[in-house]
Amino acid sequence: MKTSIKKLLEDVRDGAVPVDQALLALKEAPFEDIGFAKVDLHRPVRQGAAEVIYGAGKTPPQIVAILGVMARHGQNNAIVTRLSPEAAQEVNAAFPIEYHAEARLGLVGGFPKPDGIGRIVVATGGTSDVPVAEEAALTAQMLGNDVLRLYDVGVAGLHRTLSHLDELMSASVIIAVAGMEGALASVVGGLVDCPVVAVPTSVGYGASFGGISALLSMLNSCASGVTVVNIDNGFGAGYFASMVNHMEVKK
Amino acid sequence: MKTSIKKLLEDVRDGAVPVDQALLALKEAPFEDIGFAKVDLHRPVRQGAAEVIYGAGKTPPQIVAILGVMARHGQNNAIVTRLSPEAAQEVNAAFPIEYHAEARLGLVGGFPKPDGIGRIVVATGGTSDVPVAEEAALTAQMLGNDVLRLYDVGVAGLHRTLSHLDELMSASVIIAVAGMEGALASVVGGLVDCPVVAVPTSVGYGASFGGISALLSMLNSCASGVTVVNIDNGFGAGYFASMVNHMEVKK
Amino acid sequence: MKTSIKKLLEDVRDGAVPVDQALLALKEAPFEDIGFAKVDLHRPVRQGAAEVIYGAGKTPPQIVAILGVMARHGQNNAIVTRLSPEAAQEVNAAFPIEYHAEARLGLVGGFPKPDGIGRIVVATGGTSDVPVAEEAALTAQMLGNDVLRLYDVGVAGLHRTLSHLDELMSASVIIAVAGMEGALASVVGGLVDCPVVAVPTSVGYGASFGGISALLSMLNSCASGVTVVNIDNGFGAGYFASMVNHMEVKK
Amino acid sequence: MKTSIKKLLEDVRDGAVPVDQALLALKEAPFEDIGFAKVDLHRPVRQGAAEVIYGAGKTPPQIVAILGVMARHGQNNAIVTRLSPEAAQEVNAAFPIEYHAEARLGLVGGFPKPDGIGRIVVATGGTSDVPVAEEAALTAQMLGNDVLRLYDVGVAGLHRTLSHLDELMSASVIIAVAGMEGALASVVGGLVDCPVVAVPTSVGYGASFGGISALLSMLNSCASGVTVVNIDNGFGAGYFASMVNHMEVKK
Amino acid sequence: MKTSIKKLLEDVRDGAVPVDQALLALKEAPFEDIGFAKVDLHRPVRQGAAEVIYGAGKTPPQIVAILGVMARHGQNNAIVTRLSPEAAQEVNAAFPIEYHAEARLGLVGGFPKPDGIGRIVVATGGTSDVPVAEEAALTAQMLGNDVLRLYDVGVAGLHRTLSHLDELMSASVIIAVAGMEGALASVVGGLVDCPVVAVPTSVGYGASFGGISALLSMLNSCASGVTVVNIDNGFGAGYFASMVNHMEVKK
Amino acid sequence: MKTSIKKLLEDVRDGAVPVDQALLALKEAPFEDIGFAKVDLHRPVRQGAAEVIYGAGKTPPQIVAILGVMARHGQNNAIVTRLSPEAAQEVNAAFPIEYHAEARLGLVGGFPKPDGIGRIVVATGGTSDVPVAEEAALTAQMLGNDVLRLYDVGVAGLHRTLSHLDELMSASVIIAVAGMEGALASVVGGLVDCPVVAVPTSVGYGASFGGISALLSMLNSCASGVTVVNIDNGFGAGYFASMVNHMEVKK
Amino acid sequence: MKTSIKKLLEDVRDGAVPVDQALLALKEAPFEDIGFAKVDLHRPVRQGAAEVIYGAGKTPPQIVAILGVMARHGQNNAIVTRLSPEAAQEVNAAFPIEYHAEARLGLVGGFPKPDGIGRIVVATGGTSDVPVAEEAALTAQMLGNDVLRLYDVGVAGLHRTLSHLDELMSASVIIAVAGMEGALASVVGGLVDCPVVAVPTSVGYGASFGGISALLSMLNSCASGVTVVNIDNGFGAGYFASMVNHMEVKK
Amino acid sequence: MKTSIKKLLEDVRDGAVPVDQALLALKEAPFEDIGFAKVDLHRPVRQGAAEVIYGAGKTPPQIVAILGVMARHGQNNAIVTRLSPEAAQEVNAAFPIEYHAEARLGLVGGFPKPDGIGRIVVATGGTSDVPVAEEAALTAQMLGNDVLRLYDVGVAGLHRTLSHLDELMSASVIIAVAGMEGALASVVGGLVDCPVVAVPTSVGYGASFGGISALLSMLNSCASGVTVVNIDNGFGAGYFASMVNHMEVKK
Repeated sequence: MKTSIKKLLEDVRDGAVPVDQALLALKEAPFEDIGFAKVDLHRPVRQGAAEVIYGAGKTPPQIVAILGVMARHGQNNAIVTRLSPEAAQEVNAAFPIEYHAEARLGLVGGFPKPDGIGRIVVATGGTSDVPVAEEAALTAQMLGNDVLRLYDVGVAGLHRTLSHLDELMSASVIIAVAGMEGALASVVGGLVDCPVVAVPTSVGYGASFGGISALLSMLNSCASGVTVVNIDNGFGAGYFASMVNHMEVKK
Repeated sequence: MKTSIKKLLEDVRDGAVPVDQALLALKEAPFEDIGFAKVDLHRPVRQGAAEVIYGAGKTPPQIVAILGVMARHGQNNAIVTRLSPEAAQEVNAAFPIEYHAEARLGLVGGFPKPDGIGRIVVATGGTSDVPVAEEAALTAQMLGNDVLRLYDVGVAGLHRTLSHLDELMSASVIIAVAGMEGALASVVGGLVDCPVVAVPTSVGYGASFGGISALLSMLNSCASGVTVVNIDNGFGAGYFASMVNHMEVKK
Repeated sequence: MKTSIKKLLEDVRDGAVPVDQALLALKEAPFEDIGFAKVDLHRPVRQGAAEVIYGAGKTPPQIVAILGVMARHGQNNAIVTRLSPEAAQEVNAAFPIEYHAEARLGLVGGFPKPDGIGRIVVATGGTSDVPVAEEAALTAQMLGNDVLRLYDVGVAGLHRTLSHLDELMSASVIIAVAGMEGALASVVGGLVDCPVVAVPTSVGYGASFGGISALLSMLNSCASGVTVVNIDNGFGAGYFASMVNHMEVKK
Repeated sequence: MKTSIKKLLEDVRDGAVPVDQALLALKEAPFEDIGFAKVDLHRPVRQGAAEVIYGAGKTPPQIVAILGVMARHGQNNAIVTRLSPEAAQEVNAAFPIEYHAEARLGLVGGFPKPDGIGRIVVATGGTSDVPVAEEAALTAQMLGNDVLRLYDVGVAGLHRTLSHLDELMSASVIIAVAGMEGALASVVGGLVDCPVVAVPTSVGYGASFGGISALLSMLNSCASGVTVVNIDNGFGAGYFASMVNHMEVKK
Repeated sequence: MKTSIKKLLEDVRDGAVPVDQALLALKEAPFEDIGFAKVDLHRPVRQGAAEVIYGAGKTPPQIVAILGVMARHGQNNAIVTRLSPEAAQEVNAAFPIEYHAEARLGLVGGFPKPDGIGRIVVATGGTSDVPVAEEAALTAQMLGNDVLRLYDVGVAGLHRTLSHLDELMSASVIIAVAGMEGALASVVGGLVDCPVVAVPTSVGYGASFGGISALLSMLNSCASGVTVVNIDNGFGAGYFASMVNHMEVKK
Repeated sequence: MKTSIKKLLEDVRDGAVPVDQALLALKEAPFEDIGFAKVDLHRPVRQGAAEVIYGAGKTPPQIVAILGVMARHGQNNAIVTRLSPEAAQEVNAAFPIEYHAEARLGLVGGFPKPDGIGRIVVATGGTSDVPVAEEAALTAQMLGNDVLRLYDVGVAGLHRTLSHLDELMSASVIIAVAGMEGALASVVGGLVDCPVVAVPTSVGYGASFGGISALLSMLNSCASGVTVVNIDNGFGAGYFASMVNHMEVKK
Repeated sequence: MKTSIKKLLEDVRDGAVPVDQALLALKEAPFEDIGFAKVDLHRPVRQGAAEVIYGAGKTPPQIVAILGVMARHGQNNAIVTRLSPEAAQEVNAAFPIEYHAEARLGLVGGFPKPDGIGRIVVATGGTSDVPVAEEAALTAQMLGNDVLRLYDVGVAGLHRTLSHLDELMSASVIIAVAGMEGALASVVGGLVDCPVVAVPTSVGYGASFGGISALLSMLNSCASGVTVVNIDNGFGAGYFASMVNHMEVKK
Repeated sequence: MKTSIKKLLEDVRDGAVPVDQALLALKEAPFEDIGFAKVDLHRPVRQGAAEVIYGAGKTPPQIVAILGVMARHGQNNAIVTRLSPEAAQEVNAAFPIEYHAEARLGLVGGFPKPDGIGRIVVATGGTSDVPVAEEAALTAQMLGNDVLRLYDVGVAGLHRTLSHLDELMSASVIIAVAGMEGALASVVGGLVDCPVVAVPTSVGYGASFGGISALLSMLNSCASGVTVVNIDNGFGAGYFASMVNHMEVKK
């Protein structure tokens, strides 16, 4: 990218670009032209994968407007997170989206062909953790990943976990989603040798404190190879796992 | 016991006991004589098992004095908990005790012959949990239990846990001792069908918060049949497990 | 159980079982056949006692389906926990259950004949703690226990507690249910010599912090022989107490 | 007191006091002369009772200086709180004090003759709570109260508490000092009908969290007539109890 | 009271009372007859003052039933606390009560003639604290106290506090009710020399954490003579202040 | 101001003012006349700026009454904070106000001409933070400040923050409003050299704990020149920033 | 500053600067030359005021090295914060500093002549808060402010606070330093009409929780015009107050 | 691996292995031989990379013993974490290790040749975070990664962060290590498009609460692509980053 500044400077030297115009160029696209291009694009996505809109803080009209802009720029795949059913209906009236109520995700464009290194396994401790897991799984699918769901394999019935050992060990990345005491992350982390992204959920009652118990449990996991995202942050786990699953040598 | 009051009243009626003496009797042993005997004895122990002295809040001379009183009353077995090495040395100079430095226990009298229903298994997640586990194990032994130690069988290497499945399943009661994320209790509770007493330990760093993470994890265990004691309370777990292991039909 | 693997191996040796079939057997029932039988059955229950379904994370159709499977396998007794009145009504339309609104429990099959060692006493500090206590008491009854309820015997009127001393002392296990400052567990634990399972409740306001005050109080009980379950976890206490009350010598 | 301002104004009117001098008087003793006298004296004490110096934030020379000023103004009784043994020794070299190591109190002047309404009973749950209790008891004695100590009457052995019922019921005010689960306050509050000042102590370990457990327990006491001071604040309890024990009709 | 046991024993001796009847008497009223009379009555109240029913955990029919029992025993004054408007209406249909919506109190019988030592002043920091203050003030009035209300005298406008100094200093006991930072208790405690009972309220937002900020502030008050009750516990403060205001010499 | 007391005293001396009248004057305006004038006025505002009414704890009629009093005294500008839409409608029926629903502010009188030292910039991390930011911005405008809004410039897209560097650096005071991890305050504080008032918001979920995460982040800001107000306290930030922006040399 | 880029571009156009050299210039001082000068200088200080070195995370040799670089660049005034006595001695051996042990500050260069708008008043609640206050006061002095210290004017003796009202009201900015319940900030904020920067200190015990109580109290201050810094962050308060006291119109 | 069981079964069938020997084989290496090989090896490492020993809970003799066993099995590279200088010295006397005091790591064997996908960048906010960063960096190096250290690039001087943008953007994985408010993770996450592993450190004071502030900040990061490990867990971050940097297609 520095070459583009060099090119600009050469143009200035050669009189091809007047000083004021060069100044303007440096100012208007200040970061892109001087090496901050990645910054400017912020969340660069691979071809065909989806752009992300955080839906929680936006009104349906705002979401529709953003989707419109994206569509005009040829970005035809999008994920709208934390979208309520009501907002989804309102958005859909103006811009067709595919709404997944459980995960509270609105999707635009179909799932791209998976192009990651391997498979992402999304496992949950119980059935109550499924909404968060779906947010993670659908996000990963929209970002071009092959996803395998292993739900309700919590450690209270350890045989359930163990009976899926083959599938767990086939994963490139595992997203372990669990509430209550969140032991799934440690047990899975103790069984496999791939990165495990742990998602604590707010499932539970009493001393689960809205997910704090699971969060602390996962942060203190005695198994190596486990990192943690925010409580109920299925999207973040899916996004991160997709990044890991698309690792490639940088030139 | 009510019969003893009845007897007293009959004696009063018959003139065998003067009113004032009866009044004094009712007053001096108020609870024992009128049905509160268990209260008065407070911690009744089976023949041969040890009496307990909480050592933390007592000076060596106080401990020596109590041990002396007990000895004079024929109570020759005792456990002194939370006893520092320095205090142990000072006590030992006046009253011979057997000091277990790791568990910080001072024992008087040998282990009684086990007379419980079955075996108490004391398992730990890691080697750092051993001091708390020893406090539990020695307490249980002093209270007349057959104790099996399974140390360092934490879930980070789940195979270690599973390779001791036979021993775990042979237990009448299991004491699961673990710090960090405390997942051992849930995993063990998900493997066996006997009562599990979970002891969170203060082992760990950062977000283990001195045992809070393990404590919350254990309280939120998705496995049934798990109860919890205070952080690092090996004594309490050993005492409770011994009670359970000595259950008998009350007449 | 190891004998069943031995038998399988002998059959392989004798040609009675082909290698592939033996491999499949080891794989299909991997844990049961190689010593994990208990794992597979997970929550083995005594004859006639109830199986447990955690209702909170399941839809009525899911619950009906599970009850159906259980019925087909001859399991005619069941407890569905944390069942809302609305869900209970929906379940009941498809599969008859007996709903206890206060305890939020759905029961299938009548109470089995008590076959425990002794009696379980469920005591509460106040009337507001009764729903949690009923969850514990009904669970224990469904699991084959003789249960005595002592409600509203909190320590603010210590004479109420003391006037039930005989009944407290007749218990094999006591479940002490209390909110606010949770002192009931310590006072009961200081009066009796049987295991006490303490259940903190979310009853209270202000600095009771949804049960944290009672939870901490119970964890720090100065009385020996007290363990604790999660806030409002009546089911867990009933289940654990039943385990204790059915202790038996293992062969 | 307003009369003193009136007097000043009359003196001004009569020329007995020049304006500037009156202005100075109003300024120098601004609050005392205009109705804030109590403010100015801050901690007004009854004749013979002790003045209080909070020792924690002061150097020995500062404490000596203050004691000197007090002595020069005829205040011969003083309490220095939270005084370390080292500081006490240093103070004592310059100004004779009577140091109570356990309570960390330095006392000047003997105990005044008790002149309160009744007796203050200071009760503790265990022996470890005694230092805080002594701070309360000595403070109350220095402020002119008849004090009865009932130590180690905690609820783990409820008969111990009950065997002192007469003494508890003889109190005008009770100071209940306890760590761990702090149930003593509720039990005592449920037995007596006089004000109970509860002092949580930092005695305990694990989930006692340096006194938080006892503090919350006491704040949530189901017994009426209980108020609470800061953790380990024996002085505050003794001071408050003395105030209550010296209630009198205001004119 | 011991004399009553003595009398019973004398009657037994004299044959006036048969042994079995004496035994029954000792058992039926176990605590009253053997010195626990105060316990049995639990909350003994002065003539004409109100009995208290904690309304939160009780249904309207339960409350009506209790009020009925009390009425039959000649207890015509009562306070029902934490009574919702709906419950109040339902109770009132069966048993006439005077409902104070703001304080959520139901009162039976008029205010008794004040018979305390002096006056109780109830002060609040802001207008939002008034409901809790009213609970305190009405409770105190029902228990026979002269009550002065000083509302909205918080320290943000210190002149408001100071302008009521005369009234504050006329109090025998002050109840300081404040949310947010709860500084009122310290400021009032620094101005007067009578006992101050501080009531933190849940008024505030953000880092007030439902009253925790005010609670901690009050517990840490640098002013002596301040004790604290639970968040929003106006009743407890009124009850305690009334106890203090009715201190009398015990025989 | 002391001169006014002096004048009063001279008048007393000269007989121009009788003693009783002087006493009354000292009493009725106790603080103003003796140097506490600022106290009495409490929140003195510059000419034309708005008076503030905290709306949360007040009923619409109370607010109307206060606005009426203010109007009668010529105070025609007012801010009513934390006003719900329903309350706003009710107030407006009796006293015309301009209601800003997002900021929950009711304004009386137009914005005064800005007369501060410079410009106040109000920046937010995301769009969800805008309501709190508007409360800050409108407050500052009502108090006579030139306000520039920079919304949605959070650090997740650092280029967005940086692209407004000129505007940020033009500020006299910056109000940085952010939820979630609250990094905006540190980043802005690390870019500019003017005072930054950080406002944590309750925007976020899971471990944002209602704004605690942002609050802690801001309190721990590694950038100098940052102070913090309560969670969601837009008003406080606007008020404080206005104070800073109106600094002037005191005579 | 943009002109400097323009100049560079013109030089390139004119051939005065080769393209590669211009490219290097843009790269080596990337931000300064393109408008980020303030960023580059980071903490620009007025002539004669001190540069700041955060001493906690640096070894004495590192500090000496930085001081050396600064000296070589003509920066002769510096503040080294959080400097232990041992580190100070070691630094001083290599580079003369003036060490203030109480405030743990190392100062280089004398205090500059005050050039702020007005006076900064630093007030403390007690004597234990003085070290933090000194950190604030010395920082402000080193940054060119006239500082007045008002120590030990806490609200427990409100008359002490009020007797300094004149001085408080003379301030341009007030730094209120207090531990325990931190009420000083609210009381001062309720008395004055200038910005108040509140500094909670870790002074106290028990429920002061290392400054949390004071922190929460200050964040919830009912007085307007109060912002808060981190616990014990005297430096931050002094730095911020100096910024406010040096406000000036930006061109 | 299943083939090895098949082989064993075939050997049994063919009489090559007796039944008892086969049973023993299945039992002695129960998981490895029946498909749990990965479990048994637990932390399988690539050729030449280091095995890990958690040093905190082990005595020097234990560590030496483990290193000895490893050496005998040809594992010549090892990392011993959380090793105190004293323990390191003791270990080193028996088994030569290379001790890195700052990171508290003992290393055996040199760094292997990096064989990861790309480069791991370890960045810190300040110099105090370096020990934790070194633990991460050395761990990653021992596990076969090319590591670039960017220390002291915190956001308080944002230009420092930005001036390393090229290096940050060259990373395959970034480990962001920061204490205090932990904003570095968000800022870095907002600049790059590779996975960021955030490590909160316990660096800071007051409301940093031993790393909680940074931890919460990182969990709530508004930037996507950020996961978090435990406070001060440099090892965990290095291990996880290495896993990610060694992602490969699974067959």
